[in-house]
Amino acid sequence: MRILGIDPGSVVTGYGVIERLGSNLAHHTHGALRLPAGRPLAERLGEIHHRIGVLIRELEPDVAAVERIFVAASPRSALILGQARGAALAALGAAGIPVVEYSPPELKQAVTGSGRASKREVQAMVKRLLGLARTPVSDAADALALAICHAHAGRLRALGVGRVRSGSKRARGAGRVVVRRVR
Amino acid sequence: MRILGIDPGSVVTGYGVIERLGSNLAHHTHGALRLPAGRPLAERLGEIHHRIGVLIRELEPDVAAVERIFVAASPRSALILGQARGAALAALGAAGIPVVEYSPPELKQAVTGSGRASKREVQAMVKRLLGLARTPVSDAADALALAICHAHAGRLRALGVGRVRSGSKRARGAGRVVVRRVR
Repeated sequence: MRILGIDPGSVVTGYGVIERLGSNLAHHTHGALRLPAGRPLAERLGEIHHRIGVLIRELEPDVAAVERIFVAASPRSALILGQARGAALAALGAAGIPVVEYSPPELKQAVTGSGRASKREVQAMVKRLLGLARTPVSDAADALALAICHAHAGRLRALGVGRVRSGSKRARGAGRVVVRRVR
Repeated sequence: MRILGIDPGSVVTGYGVIERLGSNLAHHTHGALRLPAGRPLAERLGEIHHRIGVLIRELEPDVAAVERIFVAASPRSALILGQARGAALAALGAAGIPVVEYSPPELKQAVTGSGRASKREVQAMVKRLLGLARTPVSDAADALALAICHAHAGRLRALGVGRVRSGSKRARGAGRVVVRRVR
């Protein structure tokens, strides 16, 4: 199973592609789309959509794992983040790629064992789990962590652990991986 | 000048295409993309992006007029609206269509002469100004009103009225059309 992790942001969108082969993880690619702030909004959103479309065509992921947005501090920042997310999700939807969402604590838990890990700890563990030569930048590390989180969830499902609703007692238990579909 | 008006929404996205020929307006098409709520979010966003891309290829607008979002009541609704807007803007950006934004009071002012007109008044005036046989549904009427608003703004620019900053004394003056680029 090949998994595309995406962390959409208004300025930087991180991405990463890994493959789960039995109980092993293989790394394909990762990076961060950094869009010049001076360009018009629609062009920048078009670029996010285009670049994710290219990734999909080149690497043919089976599924995408996207960061669930915790409602932002202000309606204005939620709108800006929503626009970037909409451009990215539209590319996944057009290609028929199923989308699963994980919250920041879930992805931190999946790679470090702690839902409160720092950005640096996530970067270090992603590097170690995938055997990378260099530490990925934070946005790309988050995208790879999302993909790893989904790979773990898939392994748990294969072991019969099944889907767990976030907010339930089981979901709050330590070490559980929570899978929820984007609605 | 051919103008595509778009009113992106989380459930319905209105669109309309008109053409300004000297001081006359010609109607090309309008409609409302209504996306089944049961389908996954990414698919619905992919559909908005795709349908706007088809409109652009078929009707080759020179410019798009999009409703400026007044920051929504809650961060959650801003996020949902932002996602629909992001999918639509990405299609415009990918096609290199310049985007201008107008606020709801600006588009109401442009078609009815009052920034506080009701939805029904906007629908009736859009029907009259474009000589339509039937009254367009509200989302499509708003999209056509955005296009008309931009056509008027263009005529004012041609007459040397020029661009007016919203919030300035001139912009607050009655009957002014305010043009602002999406940042």
